[in-house]
Amino acid sequence: MEIQYILELIGTFFFAVSGALAVDEKDQDWFGAAFTGFVTAIGGGTLRDILLGSYPLVWIRDVQFLYTIFIAILFTALFYKHLLRLRRTLLLFDTMGISLFTVVGVEKALSLGVHPVIAAIMGMFTAVMGGVIRDTLTNETPVIFQKEVYASACLAGAFVYIGMANLEVHRTTSFLVATLLIIVIRLLAVKYNLSLPKYKRFG
Amino acid sequence: MEIQYILELIGTFFFAVSGALAVDEKDQDWFGAAFTGFVTAIGGGTLRDILLGSYPLVWIRDVQFLYTIFIAILFTALFYKHLLRLRRTLLLFDTMGISLFTVVGVEKALSLGVHPVIAAIMGMFTAVMGGVIRDTLTNETPVIFQKEVYASACLAGAFVYIGMANLEVHRTTSFLVATLLIIVIRLLAVKYNLSLPKYKRFG
Amino acid sequence: MEIQYILELIGTFFFAVSGALAVDEKDQDWFGAAFTGFVTAIGGGTLRDILLGSYPLVWIRDVQFLYTIFIAILFTALFYKHLLRLRRTLLLFDTMGISLFTVVGVEKALSLGVHPVIAAIMGMFTAVMGGVIRDTLTNETPVIFQKEVYASACLAGAFVYIGMANLEVHRTTSFLVATLLIIVIRLLAVKYNLSLPKYKRFG
Repeated sequence: MEIQYILELIGTFFFAVSGALAVDEKDQDWFGAAFTGFVTAIGGGTLRDILLGSYPLVWIRDVQFLYTIFIAILFTALFYKHLLRLRRTLLLFDTMGISLFTVVGVEKALSLGVHPVIAAIMGMFTAVMGGVIRDTLTNETPVIFQKEVYASACLAGAFVYIGMANLEVHRTTSFLVATLLIIVIRLLAVKYNLSLPKYKRFG
Repeated sequence: MEIQYILELIGTFFFAVSGALAVDEKDQDWFGAAFTGFVTAIGGGTLRDILLGSYPLVWIRDVQFLYTIFIAILFTALFYKHLLRLRRTLLLFDTMGISLFTVVGVEKALSLGVHPVIAAIMGMFTAVMGGVIRDTLTNETPVIFQKEVYASACLAGAFVYIGMANLEVHRTTSFLVATLLIIVIRLLAVKYNLSLPKYKRFG
Repeated sequence: MEIQYILELIGTFFFAVSGALAVDEKDQDWFGAAFTGFVTAIGGGTLRDILLGSYPLVWIRDVQFLYTIFIAILFTALFYKHLLRLRRTLLLFDTMGISLFTVVGVEKALSLGVHPVIAAIMGMFTAVMGGVIRDTLTNETPVIFQKEVYASACLAGAFVYIGMANLEVHRTTSFLVATLLIIVIRLLAVKYNLSLPKYKRFG
């Protein structure tokens, strides 16, 4: 429980940084940047908990999540040029975020007793829906409709985690394997421009 | 109860097909198509149940809805060209979906004891909000803001159903009259390009 | 309680008028106008209550809110030209709406026992998220990302209200000070084109 809590805070930090970095082209003010970081960081978990009817929401019960987001926004502002100069920084922060949040989301859904397929979807939603809400608000094409493998990497990691849990593999092992799998799939997909096959092959 | 369940599955199938068919111009991959079909199929009922605080959500409690959506996505892929060749196929599947879901939504809302006007709105939301969420995610103008009568046909059918229920007409009769009314209004509206009067006539 | 109820109805009326007036350029029909007014009026409070898990939703329990919205839509249609001729009418109705709803939202959140910082955010959400949902549905840039101070005025008023509540200032006084502060900040911001500093100053 303790470790899951720390991982959720770290994932929140990663996502808020990635949200604030994404603000770049938007020319937004401080409020807009904070709001964007906030929505990116808490959107996925919030949607998961609303769909599962799991109240109170994590960030409403525990104000540490808000403070983490504020610190991430400030951190991003302070090291903005350095963060951008490191190429792929945004990608890295986002990828760390989605891998952590996928497994955190799967674990929460399983703990609430839902069907494993639903748990996998909830893990993927936890990871990607914050970004989707952010993209919808800023009139971008949501990240999940973009070319490289993204949400499907989360789904793959979620199913691997659930499979290992069913085989009673130790939780830490499952956790590491699933998060690493997501990170590797995602980074390879970006590097080699991999995408899923287009819909409607047959017929 | 049994029949309502089967009707919900059928409506889910119709909506998922209509969502997957709509994907056409978007050049999406399999994940995007499945996600679009999924959102179209479960969005309206999910919003209704969240607004009414009715948990657990239908598709989270019962994984059959997910499987129905998967089958619909595959079915659409297999018969894609045939489905498109039949002109108005998309319209027909969507129209079947909204008429079924309107009545299913009204019945669920009434069974939870809300005011009839609220129940009518919930029926309309069940029918149209999945499409609205889909259109918002893909940056289209939501279907309810388009020209031909759409959501208002659902609203009309919902009120007729509630009126007949109040007059203690047999449930099957009310069901058939209301769904047929929605289908007829919608198809006539498309055929004759009927629209509601523009807002701000007076003043 | 009685007064809060009347204020919520008044705020709902203001917001529905502002939503219906905003419809202008969209060339919408009566259904679109009513839907836009409805979403603008109830969106923020609905999101707040869903996030807080506070059921039943105000407008579902009490159909007066719907009737208020219908009357506002009709009122706007009847006096449309007069309302538009008065320059800044839309701004005024919207500003009245956000100031009332901020305080109403803060009070509701505090009454549910959340952390004051969360309560301030809930007040701001109550005020601005209806407009954000409206703008998202109509593919506009959400009002909170626009230049002049908007949501941050609500946040400022919310914190002032909470501070005064902590100092045990009389409720009516806190209410008046906070709402007036929001109105003054917002109107000055529009008049003098004030905006928050751009994000990423340093680094």
